[in-house]
Amino acid sequence: MVKGDIAFTSSKDKLDIYEDAYLIVEDGQVVKISKNLEESYKDYPVEDYTSKLIIPGFIDIHLHAPQYPNMGLGLDKELIPWLETYTFPEEEKYGDLEYSRRVFTRLINDLWRFGTTRSVVFASIHKESTKLLMDLFVESGLGAYVGKVNMDRNTKKELTEDTNQSILDTEEIIKEYNDKSDLVKPIITPRFVPTCTEGLLEALGNLAIKYKVPVQSHLNENTSEVIWVKELFPNSKNYASVYDDYNLFGQTKTIMAHCIYNTDEEIDLMAQNGVYAAHCPYSNYNLSSGIMPLRKFLDKGVPVGLASDISGGNSLSMMRIIAGAIQASKMKWLGTEKELAPLSFSEAFYLATKGGGSFFGKVGSFEEGYDFDALIIDDSPLTGIKDLTIEERLQKFIYIGDDRNIIERYVKGRKVRKPF
Amino acid sequence: MVKGDIAFTSSKDKLDIYEDAYLIVEDGQVVKISKNLEESYKDYPVEDYTSKLIIPGFIDIHLHAPQYPNMGLGLDKELIPWLETYTFPEEEKYGDLEYSRRVFTRLINDLWRFGTTRSVVFASIHKESTKLLMDLFVESGLGAYVGKVNMDRNTKKELTEDTNQSILDTEEIIKEYNDKSDLVKPIITPRFVPTCTEGLLEALGNLAIKYKVPVQSHLNENTSEVIWVKELFPNSKNYASVYDDYNLFGQTKTIMAHCIYNTDEEIDLMAQNGVYAAHCPYSNYNLSSGIMPLRKFLDKGVPVGLASDISGGNSLSMMRIIAGAIQASKMKWLGTEKELAPLSFSEAFYLATKGGGSFFGKVGSFEEGYDFDALIIDDSPLTGIKDLTIEERLQKFIYIGDDRNIIERYVKGRKVRKPF
Repeated sequence: MVKGDIAFTSSKDKLDIYEDAYLIVEDGQVVKISKNLEESYKDYPVEDYTSKLIIPGFIDIHLHAPQYPNMGLGLDKELIPWLETYTFPEEEKYGDLEYSRRVFTRLINDLWRFGTTRSVVFASIHKESTKLLMDLFVESGLGAYVGKVNMDRNTKKELTEDTNQSILDTEEIIKEYNDKSDLVKPIITPRFVPTCTEGLLEALGNLAIKYKVPVQSHLNENTSEVIWVKELFPNSKNYASVYDDYNLFGQTKTIMAHCIYNTDEEIDLMAQNGVYAAHCPYSNYNLSSGIMPLRKFLDKGVPVGLASDISGGNSLSMMRIIAGAIQASKMKWLGTEKELAPLSFSEAFYLATKGGGSFFGKVGSFEEGYDFDALIIDDSPLTGIKDLTIEERLQKFIYIGDDRNIIERYVKGRKVRKPF
Repeated sequence: MVKGDIAFTSSKDKLDIYEDAYLIVEDGQVVKISKNLEESYKDYPVEDYTSKLIIPGFIDIHLHAPQYPNMGLGLDKELIPWLETYTFPEEEKYGDLEYSRRVFTRLINDLWRFGTTRSVVFASIHKESTKLLMDLFVESGLGAYVGKVNMDRNTKKELTEDTNQSILDTEEIIKEYNDKSDLVKPIITPRFVPTCTEGLLEALGNLAIKYKVPVQSHLNENTSEVIWVKELFPNSKNYASVYDDYNLFGQTKTIMAHCIYNTDEEIDLMAQNGVYAAHCPYSNYNLSSGIMPLRKFLDKGVPVGLASDISGGNSLSMMRIIAGAIQASKMKWLGTEKELAPLSFSEAFYLATKGGGSFFGKVGSFEEGYDFDALIIDDSPLTGIKDLTIEERLQKFIYIGDDRNIIERYVKGRKVRKPF
């Protein structure tokens, strides 16, 4: 049981606020929130966070673990030359487990530091390094879907997999990890259409269905990429339908990152198949990709989460990404003659918590039955000049706060300490 | 004399880098940078920052001190309703010197924390509060231009000045402070055209010329504002020419904030008169103002600096604002069919140092004769995975670092401690 100023978003249009209230947790899940403590809970131990904010942990539904060393570097190119110049050369290094460990422990520490309690992660093509990343997540106590990347064409020789080996490695990881941990799970991860042969895509779709494993990839990030996909699959209706044709588009739970240049037809297909869009505003700025028309996705009922997409993105802070998503949506509003309404604060907060969290199940909210993933926020350094409501305090934390304001992290009811 | 890895931008197109070099300071000014220490300097005391970065202090050329308590709040409106709903009610409070002191000491501490060694600041209409802000800047050791705001129409009754009193108060401050400190100076500050009568604008232009005092105001931030100005001054050629007609547009050194909707004619006038543009990317996002076509200003030779514009902006960190300016320029590039080239890293760094710094004189660079305003950056927490060049280390600091990486600040050769 915890006590404090509780804020979350059960729906995207408003914050649920409970001032100075008790939140009762049993078996890692939220039982109820109440202003006054009922008799039956009088003997429960209370973690007293009076005057602190208690909010859901942040959910980052798209990031590349092996790109961590490149964060903040090489942001002078668009997607395809950026991949070739900066990203692929870095991703080559993960045959080296010593290097992998050095990078991944720092990454996981940073996720912890910024209050990201669950994330959906691309590893590299390397099987052992991917397993190490999953083991380290398990050790950390944070939740994650982790995918070994598949690519068997159109990349550097050193990163081009043999198609059969790529499939075998992927299946090995699924079998070994699918039921190993309740917090860390495998996810099938074709990098994106241009680097996968039809044979590979087909086999990965089959694996997804056979083992009921979710899928992640990239979609419509950059105009040159879109043209390239059209050249590679001239007979497909569009970019999304390539994935769909191979059972990689919502046949099992699926996330597609970016979705900047989706046609209306592609957005409809995502809504129909329940495919998640991962909105990555900072990455989309840095690689000059564009601004996703997020409002269209929300209006059509596509599930959406927010994401850092390091190292296209330059920050793991979901606070900054919430603010960045609101800012990007305002520029989209201006750019569409004020047609696509900007995100409200509660909408953006929702996307970074329950929106992405729903990919993990009942995660990202404090409704009954939800996993108790939570952050305790000491916002006192940001306030103290004038009286603020809880909503205003939360806005201050998101817009001007940082990791120093996060004083505790919980995942499934367990307090998580700095992992490494 | 300091020793370390030195980086600055004497011109905007490239970084000047001196690895493990000595920078010799005399009377607060840079004398030279040398790789090897000459005999004549052997006895000088050295502050040894080996392996640390030494860069110019950041320059923030547009921010509103009394809006500090609103940082991160009320970002759901455009300029005019935002002023009326959130900003003017806050600015009313600065008749209270106790409140003023509480806010200003926190603001100045934050400027110090984020390495902003010089800033150009709007106070409120209140004379005594403005003087207090100047006194506190002097006490802090940081440099600033501080302006008492003038407005005598189209605002709340409580903020509407009597025209004559407004002029008298402004002149009193100029006389008292113009020669009081070499680091803290007054600046004439009509809020913006809509809140100033012709009589007030005329008198302020006269004061500027009489006392050789610089000027700051706002220009073309929002489309509704532009229309309003046209209604108020139907006979003026454009928004800029209203200021120009009253000697408030480069007749003395002048900064105009935002400049998003300038016509080409207005940009030309700025170039011709040497009027500075203060680019405030986060404010322009938050208030849905738009993205300034910065490249046009650079191409035409308009002097430009970067600015936080709190509390329209939500961050005082010039590191974030440098990254934000690059990101905004990339969206502008896309939005203009790739006509207006995005900012390079060195260009953005230049704008935040020498670009804005030149408003203060020889400030913002480490060329000979420049004031030694500097930050010492311990970037070791951001690196250590792979070898990086000094330029890459600087990029990491700007894109992923924060105030914790700034371990010392110098202004005019003097080390500045946390002020309050």
